[in-house]
Amino acid sequence: MTVPGDTRPALDPGADLVELTRALVDTPSESGSEAALADGVERALRALSHLRVERIGDSVVARTELGRAERVVIAGHLDTVPPCDNLPSRLTDGRLHGLGACDMKGGVAVALHTAATVTAPVRDVTYVFYECEETSDERNGLGRIAAERPDLLHADLAILMEPSDGTVEGGCQGFLTADVVVRGRRAHTARPWMGVNAAHLAGEVLRVLAEHVAEEVVIDGLVYREGLSAVAVEAGVAGNVLPDVCVVTVNLRYAPSRTPAQAEAYVRGLFPGYEVEVTEVLPGALPGLDRPAAASLLARLAAAPRAKLGWTDVARFAAAGVPAVNFGPGDPSLAHTPGEYVEVSQLREVHRALRHWLVG
Amino acid sequence: MTVPGDTRPALDPGADLVELTRALVDTPSESGSEAALADGVERALRALSHLRVERIGDSVVARTELGRAERVVIAGHLDTVPPCDNLPSRLTDGRLHGLGACDMKGGVAVALHTAATVTAPVRDVTYVFYECEETSDERNGLGRIAAERPDLLHADLAILMEPSDGTVEGGCQGFLTADVVVRGRRAHTARPWMGVNAAHLAGEVLRVLAEHVAEEVVIDGLVYREGLSAVAVEAGVAGNVLPDVCVVTVNLRYAPSRTPAQAEAYVRGLFPGYEVEVTEVLPGALPGLDRPAAASLLARLAAAPRAKLGWTDVARFAAAGVPAVNFGPGDPSLAHTPGEYVEVSQLREVHRALRHWLVG
Repeated sequence: MTVPGDTRPALDPGADLVELTRALVDTPSESGSEAALADGVERALRALSHLRVERIGDSVVARTELGRAERVVIAGHLDTVPPCDNLPSRLTDGRLHGLGACDMKGGVAVALHTAATVTAPVRDVTYVFYECEETSDERNGLGRIAAERPDLLHADLAILMEPSDGTVEGGCQGFLTADVVVRGRRAHTARPWMGVNAAHLAGEVLRVLAEHVAEEVVIDGLVYREGLSAVAVEAGVAGNVLPDVCVVTVNLRYAPSRTPAQAEAYVRGLFPGYEVEVTEVLPGALPGLDRPAAASLLARLAAAPRAKLGWTDVARFAAAGVPAVNFGPGDPSLAHTPGEYVEVSQLREVHRALRHWLVG
Repeated sequence: MTVPGDTRPALDPGADLVELTRALVDTPSESGSEAALADGVERALRALSHLRVERIGDSVVARTELGRAERVVIAGHLDTVPPCDNLPSRLTDGRLHGLGACDMKGGVAVALHTAATVTAPVRDVTYVFYECEETSDERNGLGRIAAERPDLLHADLAILMEPSDGTVEGGCQGFLTADVVVRGRRAHTARPWMGVNAAHLAGEVLRVLAEHVAEEVVIDGLVYREGLSAVAVEAGVAGNVLPDVCVVTVNLRYAPSRTPAQAEAYVRGLFPGYEVEVTEVLPGALPGLDRPAAASLLARLAAAPRAKLGWTDVARFAAAGVPAVNFGPGDPSLAHTPGEYVEVSQLREVHRALRHWLVG
């Protein structure tokens, strides 16, 4: 599977964890452009005789088949948000900086290294490295696997390597995106009084967002702090025309105790008198930390669990009846920031915990 | 110059004025796509032996060369703003509706018909049909002619066929476009409190615009009413990222008594604390109606002159020392509105006045 003209060294999953993470960061893989990285991962895993490997789109699934009583999924996404002057990787003062270092190539490195080096785990493991998590639901690689090959995801527990500061983060918040549409009436800018400027009116929508105070919801002792943000504003017809429409796209992160329908009603209630079109809504996942498989992992960790604020694919597993937790290296508050990094010490700690749990 | 496969009937400038206007409206010519219309105009004018025709880009210049004591320019632009469900043309109750009917294919039809039918005017005439008026200054066809062939524009008076309700509109307002840049700090939308949402902050810029009260400036008895409008708003990184920048593009129409530098200072003064980048600024033109050539035209009209609010290429002539007025069919307040139209009676009146002025 060598790509002609590709002179990069092959990915070595058995390499030192920091070098492996750097190699992953330095292979750009913005959502939709993961092919090269998926190729590298697939090539590396196919070289390992204890794994059965399948490729689905730009996602790669590798399984041990040892006939163990339990099976766990260890999953991570290969893609990143767009770059922001943060490539290539840079190692300083015990921190590895670079696009995706935190979210979540550090976690992918842990999974990949574990896949390569723990050849006889006490639980069978299904490793899933998937595409397009940082985009829309329809393109999500794990969603595609769940739809096309649900058999690959059957397990007693799923661990998502999402950045969680090396502690277990329970459940996840729901996710809703909606367009708030503000309408006006076009006119020539030499006579603005003949029309209604939709962009000027949209100032009120942005004021509501700026003044909105998000709620905090406590579930099973974990605090879910919600958030409501404009993620896009778009208006413009021509340089001499009053825009007749301005669309403010908002994103709500809501506590898993709200249903998608309740979340939708909440957003509509904030913008009465405007058209509100919900374009995507994903349910959250309740913590569920009392389930046995999750409890056995928790028992190995010193730190107490906490709430997962970002939506993650634990909701996808929860919907399929597989208990799932988030557990990965990296401070989740650094995800999607230009200065994201992962602490090398945390990278190694998460790897050690996971390895011990699998080696027994 | 027949285009292979083009089965449309050739443009007939000698046809009835309404049919000619319809033919012009029904030949789409959004800015940058005027080639087909320019081809038709060029072909029609080259067939007339009393005119010397030149093509410059997608602009067409046609001159009489009768050795008269005076020369006048009669100019109109061929392009329109983007369509808005207003094609093809529609004639009802004495009004011709359709994209560009008002701004300014009605005026172009008058000029084209006059060019074809007044073969021995008392003043030599230079007809200019030009491209890209509805876009940026750099692409303006008249600007290109002024730069490459200034000799073609020499005249004692220029008449621009801009919609002016069949009255003479003096001078024009200045035009300024600027980007007001609002900066924040990116963060994941699951933790908006870690960043600063530039879109939320931009609500304040839009509030200033919504509350801004434009000034009215009186010059030579004409009232110049200014206008300040957002023409575009743009923010957005990804669906789960707080935008770190939001750009509000504003367009100021300012009275010709302000210099471009004063107009720029005025806009900057409205948005202290924001980055303001002026991307285009055009001077206005003072009325200048007391000049002899303009006065002789005014003397033929019943209606009193008024201020031109929109920026027009009279400023381009004024800069070159050629007195210029706006005089065309169509209510200028309808320009760039989806429902624009031209009154058939006004189309004919403007044609009659112009014809009499040229026939003597």
